Amino acid sequence: MNAGDSLRRLRETKPLVHQITNYVVMNETANATLALGALPVMAHAQEEVEEMVRLAGALVLNIGTLSPHWVDAMLLAGRAANESGVPVVLDPVGAGATSYRTATAKRLLDEIDVTVLRGNAGEVATLVGVDAEVRGVESIDTGADAAELARSAGSRLGLVASVTGPVDHVSDGETVVAVSNGHELLASITGTGCMSSAVTGCFLAVNRERPLDAAVEALVAFGVAGEDAARAAKGPGSFHVELYDALAALDPDTLDDRALTA
Amino acid sequence: MNAGDSLRRLRETKPLVHQITNYVVMNETANATLALGALPVMAHAQEEVEEMVRLAGALVLNIGTLSPHWVDAMLLAGRAANESGVPVVLDPVGAGATSYRTATAKRLLDEIDVTVLRGNAGEVATLVGVDAEVRGVESIDTGADAAELARSAGSRLGLVASVTGPVDHVSDGETVVAVSNGHELLASITGTGCMSSAVTGCFLAVNRERPLDAAVEALVAFGVAGEDAARAAKGPGSFHVELYDALAALDPDTLDDRALTA
Amino acid sequence: MNAGDSLRRLRETKPLVHQITNYVVMNETANATLALGALPVMAHAQEEVEEMVRLAGALVLNIGTLSPHWVDAMLLAGRAANESGVPVVLDPVGAGATSYRTATAKRLLDEIDVTVLRGNAGEVATLVGVDAEVRGVESIDTGADAAELARSAGSRLGLVASVTGPVDHVSDGETVVAVSNGHELLASITGTGCMSSAVTGCFLAVNRERPLDAAVEALVAFGVAGEDAARAAKGPGSFHVELYDALAALDPDTLDDRALTA
Repeated sequence: MNAGDSLRRLRETKPLVHQITNYVVMNETANATLALGALPVMAHAQEEVEEMVRLAGALVLNIGTLSPHWVDAMLLAGRAANESGVPVVLDPVGAGATSYRTATAKRLLDEIDVTVLRGNAGEVATLVGVDAEVRGVESIDTGADAAELARSAGSRLGLVASVTGPVDHVSDGETVVAVSNGHELLASITGTGCMSSAVTGCFLAVNRERPLDAAVEALVAFGVAGEDAARAAKGPGSFHVELYDALAALDPDTLDDRALTA
Repeated sequence: MNAGDSLRRLRETKPLVHQITNYVVMNETANATLALGALPVMAHAQEEVEEMVRLAGALVLNIGTLSPHWVDAMLLAGRAANESGVPVVLDPVGAGATSYRTATAKRLLDEIDVTVLRGNAGEVATLVGVDAEVRGVESIDTGADAAELARSAGSRLGLVASVTGPVDHVSDGETVVAVSNGHELLASITGTGCMSSAVTGCFLAVNRERPLDAAVEALVAFGVAGEDAARAAKGPGSFHVELYDALAALDPDTLDDRALTA
Repeated sequence: MNAGDSLRRLRETKPLVHQITNYVVMNETANATLALGALPVMAHAQEEVEEMVRLAGALVLNIGTLSPHWVDAMLLAGRAANESGVPVVLDPVGAGATSYRTATAKRLLDEIDVTVLRGNAGEVATLVGVDAEVRGVESIDTGADAAELARSAGSRLGLVASVTGPVDHVSDGETVVAVSNGHELLASITGTGCMSSAVTGCFLAVNRERPLDAAVEALVAFGVAGEDAARAAKGPGSFHVELYDALAALDPDTLDDRALTA
């Protein structure tokens, strides 16, 4: 893992990150992508998603405000990404809250070769069949060991599982990396989970061969930005603003020294 | 009325507030809900709204960017809310501006048992048959007495009418409460009306038996936050940021002392 | 051209600017419109767009997250605007990136009498048949002379072409005006191109007879606001906030002295 090198490469190559995401956070994930140094593009029409994703360095699918037409577009884009070797991030927002969300997340996992599954513990637990308490789109408590959950999800689903929470756990089914970067203010605004998925897409775009590293590097970078943003924040509104400034100000030279990984 | 107690209860119980709202303000109402201390969830698919609303403490319907599929989802969610005893807020954005908006707002009022109707004077006047000048989604002037408009709407529609403006008026058809909290900068950014509807949903979720009190407490809390935000603001952009900080910083111990109600 | 007079008139008359735009920037273009002093309204249902646009001072069409239903609504609204003499701005976001975007932008230009086409060099070059490199919704390099591109687009398409970039070029096919106002931080957040289209709609609403002047005045005003915002900004997040404050603080008395036009 070398988050600084990846960030440097990302800012030099400015990969296009195609996002089919929810209405609540589109502006926020686009701005997080730009602040980090990549180029976001939002496109969801079935008429164009296959063409668009072939131009992209990564595809991010997020079911936060899903509906049938959007799910169809996600399937089309995901399959085209697979055909072209474009890595895919899936954010299964609210899996476990309603049966439609759970079934849709499972369908996307079945029909698309997902590279990184980025969710909270409740969502990921739901998708590997572990009991979890989910309220709306918030994960309350899984009761499960988070490291084991990530390992189990990585192994059973055949992907990199990136389970975020107070401490994040990322696993390819064998190795488990814990990331302790971040700040509690990240939970005070909506869309920070979705932003971390978008940032994961950015790092994957410059690290196709090493998805475990990319997922860890993304959470380190996003977490460090959260720590920096919190220093100047008075509450959730100012934290939100500082977060973009902090993403743009991330220093590749010091990023790895600040990584809290184990 | 005891806004401080309600806010304390809201922060302790963190009710889920299901919102089917417009594209323009989804991020903003979700963040206002979170900043206040409740949990927002946005879900509009007909496949899941009934299941989602049964998990919620309140449902907020907002027709700001309506279209037929969304209206169908609002009807499904509203009926399911009624069956489960979940209180419903309706924000009839732009009623009076186009016949589609007026007809849709009336249909929602006809087919759903709405607990609180939160709108500006022009919108509410339209829905009770009083002449009003509406420009787009802005209420210009009703010519009517705002207190009487709230009383009349509460009485004729059989709900709590929460009519916001320079001075807000809330009525169940008998009692009329005037709320003078707030600040003119609230009119300088889009979505503050929608946010006040979301905040009304939050207070209703912890006050099902007393919707008049809940609607008044919500406007007091939102108005006080607006006053606090205005102190540090240089214009609409900084006011917007300060508003979330101020909602999160609302102090239950002093909130009722600051209420400007009559 | 007199940007100050137009801004003064805009703030006095508060024209309604009807926007059918993309999900990513709806909140942002609405807030930019409000901050400048006009009234935004977002409405996209085929059931109401014709009625809404007849109430408006200008119509802004933006294909940033297009899909068939939305395109149909844009066509309906555009034709109704033409019938009523309401000026139309088209922002062809991502034309050149996918064939669906290119074809849709061309169809809108064919079927609607567009008053001002506001795009980046890659998008406009695509629409007049000049080779351009487009990545997603970003214009990378056209290789063409920007002034000649604007003149050519204005002439061939029979409208005012407003081609924005490090230096903007606006042309009706004969006169070409270069606008050097603005700041590089405008490229650091998503939606500033879309905001400049919305601001163009605001100035058109008070300058129907002089669309070339309106388009130039809009870019001067937006660019000057960008310069003011940059002074207080630490990065893209704070710049975004300052931009709204700066739009609201624009001074009609000094605006023309600050115009960098040639």
